[in-house]
Amino acid sequence: MTPTRCTTAGAERSDAARNRALLLAAARRLVGEHGAEHVTMEAVAKEAGVGKGTLFRRFGDREGLLCALLDEAEADFREAYTCGPPPLGPGAPPVDRLAAFGCALIDRATAVTDLGSALARQLRPQNRNASESGRACRRHVATLLREAGVDAEHDLLANALLAFATFETVDFLTREHGVSADHLHKTWTDLIRLVTRPDGTTIGTAHDK
Amino acid sequence: MTPTRCTTAGAERSDAARNRALLLAAARRLVGEHGAEHVTMEAVAKEAGVGKGTLFRRFGDREGLLCALLDEAEADFREAYTCGPPPLGPGAPPVDRLAAFGCALIDRATAVTDLGSALARQLRPQNRNASESGRACRRHVATLLREAGVDAEHDLLANALLAFATFETVDFLTREHGVSADHLHKTWTDLIRLVTRPDGTTIGTAHDK
Repeated sequence: MTPTRCTTAGAERSDAARNRALLLAAARRLVGEHGAEHVTMEAVAKEAGVGKGTLFRRFGDREGLLCALLDEAEADFREAYTCGPPPLGPGAPPVDRLAAFGCALIDRATAVTDLGSALARQLRPQNRNASESGRACRRHVATLLREAGVDAEHDLLANALLAFATFETVDFLTREHGVSADHLHKTWTDLIRLVTRPDGTTIGTAHDK
Repeated sequence: MTPTRCTTAGAERSDAARNRALLLAAARRLVGEHGAEHVTMEAVAKEAGVGKGTLFRRFGDREGLLCALLDEAEADFREAYTCGPPPLGPGAPPVDRLAAFGCALIDRATAVTDLGSALARQLRPQNRNASESGRACRRHVATLLREAGVDAEHDLLANALLAFATFETVDFLTREHGVSADHLHKTWTDLIRLVTRPDGTTIGTAHDK
């Protein structure tokens, strides 16, 4: 199987793209120095040498700027699961790719040094869900569920499964209950195994097919 | 099968219990009149005719007061799934009870007039998870997964499944994507059916039994 070729996001005019890149680079430097939670629009504007108005016009608000940084920080991860080596990337059976993908998400949620994770934590759950990065994750899981032949509505089932790998759930289990990342991997892998295994019966299903 | 007898929470001294009940009644009145999001500790103290210090000593902070109200508001629901009629209550097969339980949670998350739901929305996810009401839900699902003979670690799998029925996930799907409550019921029921159905194979499982 030939890995899908990753394409760039859009065709921005080159000066607008250059300005955007400069603003994002300034924001990224400040996030690296002070942590995402301490970065203000004012400090980013100052660091980039532009007025605050320019920053707001470009990104809407602080959440918009963090979303843009997140999508950028997630590019490597997205590349890994769409074009990288198996089992995360193409070439492995869909069940193994689903298992690897959830484990990778759990690793990112438990990593203290991951930039994407630090940025995503700063976003409200609805903005995180609505980000390009969040949408790409759901599309990926839905596609693999379809490829695995799971008998359910794949888009919604992807949402249901991915709810386990959110910061809220992972934090609660690791911080409040002392559950290790390995233990969470095992639970995710168990869940995927249960959902994707061949059916042993056709009796008593609640599905109206 | 005889339904489990529900017992009261503890053996509080009667005057302390009476004071607590008065404070909760005052808070409940204000929540009913103004909505949980507008209720302050100051207003509750005034409504109950006590000093703010008394309220803080009793409940710690606003989240503590809301948690206590939530546990009280959830008593009827807890009674319904532990002692009420099947399929939510005892007497139905565990798979049907699991399906009914998740659908009931989704209904509560989508209901605009449910007091428990309004209170739970005001809590930070970690406090909501850690509340007695949240713990009881996870124990209930873990017990039913065990009874259904699911081959996995039941406590953690319960967390994984219940993540779908959280406000964050349900809100995102209903508000941002226009998914109906019925549609969410179907997804939950599909998920439960997939997780609990008899195994069609013993080959290729990721489980290290």
